[in-house]
Amino acid sequence: MGIILIGERINGSFKDVGRAIQEHDKTVIRDRVARQEAGGADFLDVNMGAASRKLEDYAWLVQTVAESTALPLSLDCPRVDMFQTGLKAYRDTVGERAVILNSTTAEDSKLVPLLELASQYKAGIIGVVMDERGSPQDVDRRLELGGKIFAAAVEAGLSPADIFLDPIVMPVKFMQDQPKNILQAIQQMTSLSDPPCHISIGLSNVSSKADERKLINRTFMVMAMAMGVDTAILDVCDEDLRNAVATAELLLGTEIYSDAYLKAYRQRGASGTAAAAA
Amino acid sequence: MGIILIGERINGSFKDVGRAIQEHDKTVIRDRVARQEAGGADFLDVNMGAASRKLEDYAWLVQTVAESTALPLSLDCPRVDMFQTGLKAYRDTVGERAVILNSTTAEDSKLVPLLELASQYKAGIIGVVMDERGSPQDVDRRLELGGKIFAAAVEAGLSPADIFLDPIVMPVKFMQDQPKNILQAIQQMTSLSDPPCHISIGLSNVSSKADERKLINRTFMVMAMAMGVDTAILDVCDEDLRNAVATAELLLGTEIYSDAYLKAYRQRGASGTAAAAA
Repeated sequence: MGIILIGERINGSFKDVGRAIQEHDKTVIRDRVARQEAGGADFLDVNMGAASRKLEDYAWLVQTVAESTALPLSLDCPRVDMFQTGLKAYRDTVGERAVILNSTTAEDSKLVPLLELASQYKAGIIGVVMDERGSPQDVDRRLELGGKIFAAAVEAGLSPADIFLDPIVMPVKFMQDQPKNILQAIQQMTSLSDPPCHISIGLSNVSSKADERKLINRTFMVMAMAMGVDTAILDVCDEDLRNAVATAELLLGTEIYSDAYLKAYRQRGASGTAAAAA
Repeated sequence: MGIILIGERINGSFKDVGRAIQEHDKTVIRDRVARQEAGGADFLDVNMGAASRKLEDYAWLVQTVAESTALPLSLDCPRVDMFQTGLKAYRDTVGERAVILNSTTAEDSKLVPLLELASQYKAGIIGVVMDERGSPQDVDRRLELGGKIFAAAVEAGLSPADIFLDPIVMPVKFMQDQPKNILQAIQQMTSLSDPPCHISIGLSNVSSKADERKLINRTFMVMAMAMGVDTAILDVCDEDLRNAVATAELLLGTEIYSDAYLKAYRQRGASGTAAAAA
């Protein structure tokens, strides 16, 4: 199965999206949806950022996105009550369409209620390998926390196909030893279960505050794909990134070779036939 | 230790180089040497292609390249007698400088005499994992032949640092299942010995006859680096490829981060300080 691309651009941290959330302006949101559909997104992440903390604003945002697209959503929230509100708005708008909760940590106070919600609403879940002790800096701790989240999710009734483990990507500029560590963790996570769960990364963090953001993003992305990443939250409108992803898919055998494979890959997005895969 | 880049452009298959070999024209050769030095090559591959089969032409070519650069060479020959001629010309010209024999297979009729030469002339050796039965299509056979070459080389007195195993890169256009297989073989080859030997790829073959050659080359290159490749024969004058390699080195921690890391990496070549690492 090919890579699952989660579009990152419906995020209140972008100025225009933040203002659209505050003013309940659907035009801006719909434009972002359309551009990410054209970019080949398989899911759309929905995140208010710091634009609002109000539950009714999140319900409005989820409903606005959901009614503008046939793509499934990734609900990206800081709080359990916001997930609950978003899930209810989503199910009220679209019925049974796929959805991912982005994200839980391995901390019981977050993991337990979010797995309950995931089970109740038939949602997938992204599990980030950190807990009350913070972010891990080594492979073993990443695997230990990944194993804990995986076991708890299966216990809660989720199947491996609904579980997305996130090894936490850290900025190469500030923690240069981490990207290699993360690549090793990804590779070892692929053996965690059979059938395997998904391994997902929040790509853009690797290039945080760096000058060569796009080059660093697309280079890390294909390295992570080589190691076993099959899901990523990223900018699907970055054409060089999408071409790199398409080429990595070709080399991993998840896209069929043709001389015009880049064009074929672009049309996957343009034709709106992207598979919802959660 | 960082990646070892072997420049591929002194090859008689290129029309101007072929003619220069036939006419013993040093100008063309020196220009290729200078451009690959500027491109950051650590070694220069020296290959007559089909331009000539004469031993005296190879002796001339090796001497011409060797006296034009302080870089070590990779002698790339189809026959044992040509290696012998090239090695003698090289030692007569430069004395004790590093050198690699590119390449042997696992076939005894080639492996035994080339390891004798490598031992006699203190040369490193690239061992391609094929034998009289042809090229392998699966991971196990690649590892079996790699293990055979490694053991024979150690037996002949070479240290792991002198041994470069090549998993044989095959074209994605014609054998689309192979690149993934090769990436897996690379990863498993990294555990073959401790300290490890080098793992080397002939990069350009992955994109043979494809339309998007450069994009396929640089994407496969950084994927292979993630898996453990530390040596490659490639076009060091392809700037996008070098930027991708520099970025992968950053992410693997073999180059130090700075906002201007691309510029720093380019200067490594321009200043002629590239480390000879065999």
